[in-house]
Amino acid sequence: MLKVDKKDPSSVGVVETKYFTFAQEDGGMPLQCGERLGPITIAYETYGKPNAEKSNAILILHALSGDAHAAGIHPGLDNPGWWDEMVGPGKAFDTDRFFIICSNVIGGCKGSTGPSSINPKTGQPYALDFPFVTIADMVNAQCHLVNYLGIDQLLCVAGGSMGGMQVLQWVASYPERVRSAIPIATTLKHSPQQIAFNEAARQAIMADPAWSNGDYYAYGQPEKGLSVARMIGHITFMSIDSMEKKFSRRLKNGTLSFSFEADFEVEGYLRYRGANFVKRFDANSYLYLTKAIDYFDLSGGKLIPPDKKISTKFLIISFKSDWLYPSQQSQEIVRILKRRHVDVTYCELSSTYGHDAFLVETGEQTNLIRHFLNNVYEERF
Amino acid sequence: MLKVDKKDPSSVGVVETKYFTFAQEDGGMPLQCGERLGPITIAYETYGKPNAEKSNAILILHALSGDAHAAGIHPGLDNPGWWDEMVGPGKAFDTDRFFIICSNVIGGCKGSTGPSSINPKTGQPYALDFPFVTIADMVNAQCHLVNYLGIDQLLCVAGGSMGGMQVLQWVASYPERVRSAIPIATTLKHSPQQIAFNEAARQAIMADPAWSNGDYYAYGQPEKGLSVARMIGHITFMSIDSMEKKFSRRLKNGTLSFSFEADFEVEGYLRYRGANFVKRFDANSYLYLTKAIDYFDLSGGKLIPPDKKISTKFLIISFKSDWLYPSQQSQEIVRILKRRHVDVTYCELSSTYGHDAFLVETGEQTNLIRHFLNNVYEERF
Repeated sequence: MLKVDKKDPSSVGVVETKYFTFAQEDGGMPLQCGERLGPITIAYETYGKPNAEKSNAILILHALSGDAHAAGIHPGLDNPGWWDEMVGPGKAFDTDRFFIICSNVIGGCKGSTGPSSINPKTGQPYALDFPFVTIADMVNAQCHLVNYLGIDQLLCVAGGSMGGMQVLQWVASYPERVRSAIPIATTLKHSPQQIAFNEAARQAIMADPAWSNGDYYAYGQPEKGLSVARMIGHITFMSIDSMEKKFSRRLKNGTLSFSFEADFEVEGYLRYRGANFVKRFDANSYLYLTKAIDYFDLSGGKLIPPDKKISTKFLIISFKSDWLYPSQQSQEIVRILKRRHVDVTYCELSSTYGHDAFLVETGEQTNLIRHFLNNVYEERF
Repeated sequence: MLKVDKKDPSSVGVVETKYFTFAQEDGGMPLQCGERLGPITIAYETYGKPNAEKSNAILILHALSGDAHAAGIHPGLDNPGWWDEMVGPGKAFDTDRFFIICSNVIGGCKGSTGPSSINPKTGQPYALDFPFVTIADMVNAQCHLVNYLGIDQLLCVAGGSMGGMQVLQWVASYPERVRSAIPIATTLKHSPQQIAFNEAARQAIMADPAWSNGDYYAYGQPEKGLSVARMIGHITFMSIDSMEKKFSRRLKNGTLSFSFEADFEVEGYLRYRGANFVKRFDANSYLYLTKAIDYFDLSGGKLIPPDKKISTKFLIISFKSDWLYPSQQSQEIVRILKRRHVDVTYCELSSTYGHDAFLVETGEQTNLIRHFLNNVYEERF
């Protein structure tokens, strides 16, 4: 991510995270696991302004380690939001035209209620008493936020990876409230290989004695385990080509150490990324969110039930070099939608960045998304 | 691996591991890192008989977690050697014709000198006092064994993965002693992605407090860390298709647990494989051997120095679904050999088993290898 010039006219500028808390009767919002969760706080940000009819609202959905801070800058911090190159005046999600919302998922650790939040029943962090949340539960909670903001129908829901799963779940759960959908680099369900990578990451966290069965908040995170989990993730986010370009076999110190120090730049990069991640992400959230991702399954007739007809328009994007979420998985979504006569545009971009492309390959995505959103907004379909 | 019928005529039957110990002056065999190691013990097995001229000897080289026990059965154990379907009477490596040798690498933990061996200077296990060994050091030690067995020239050196690296190193170090070479599913050097997977595995081991900076032999292994390391390995050994076929999204207990138990069969498989591995493999050996693999680099002019001409015949095999050691890496070896006018046959097999194919896809490998070895042996080239 690039540093943002505060006077950059293409930036939404300084933004702040807002919080919306809701409680439901009978102990909270019902979850798929059978339990209830409440009160629920959702951290969210908005960019741009709603029009009079509130028909220009777009909900952006983040990936596993993302948050509500999609664009602009927070006072005192240099790094802009995770999709800053995509959200702003004149950008793909044009804040001059559209009202953009991004919220942190429940189960996460960036302001929305999750395992590190205080359990009102005990006054202590939930830890593993936090109930299991699914992608559908995340979307139900987001729907409360959208209701609160007075939006009947979202012009678009958009996101990559786990964000793309939420896009698909919005269509499955609330088709009439979604005018268009942009699932990027995602899938209807995890393959066993995708589950396996998540499981290895979870085992790395749970293998760390500091994890203490999730009950570590008084003592500090299982940093080593979470760091290894993140290293596994980073390998899967990059392509062979992008790793070759970024690191090749270059040595950190010009010579082999004949020790277990990081010899190669790629080793140093993984260690750095792992060590940095533990400063900003909760290990229990990593466990809960990866499980939610693995459980997610809208295959078969579950995306659009057989008796339903939907009018949501789709733009589906995948990346040729993304071996974690290979294009075949996006093409499977396209096939299902086509069979149900849904209006769908599909594009496989030839980026070499692997799964990371949905975050960094912003130029080509911008061309596709800007055009698609303008058409949807002006009802050219 | 299948259980072996002790009277199976295609099995080499009951075999035993032998040990060869050698010491060199000045503190042992010189290593690439500048240190010396000695005395060195090499665990090895042989199958079939040498002919009068000892011109029918084939050296088989094992992969990261392999050992000297390539074929036949050990008394009291049901599982045959790791390449039993390839080594035996009438098999690819035909023990009716050839004298087969397989030895455990130095740095390993299956009988050859490694970090878990007793350091004669201290009377304690070497642990991290064990010097760094490279693939070239392993081959140098094997050469001592071959000398001891009275073999001037090996008819063939063959092996997959790290075994294939040793094959290439034999050619680089002792071209005149290798009549033919069969490197399978291997590479001239690890890509940054391959290094990254090994580094994540090493970090998983070293993150386990039980690792104790390698000094754990009095207390027991860093089982959790080593188990996670092995899980990472197993994911990379299989293809998306073979995982889909073996596990799909089948649940272990028919229903989602909404807990961190293993829900999916693939999760149970990884945990089982991880837990089993720690019973049979030393964590420090895993660290040393993965570093040796990452350091290995015979690219550029290093396989055959510019001033050398070699007469070794090559059969190179790769597997279409092997994404850990993709076919392009084998094709790079072919290109270099062709440019140097070396006699090389290359075959990409269409197995769906991923990197594991070199162990399990024995039918097609047998056809190729039997034909190749017969031609080499009968000097049909």
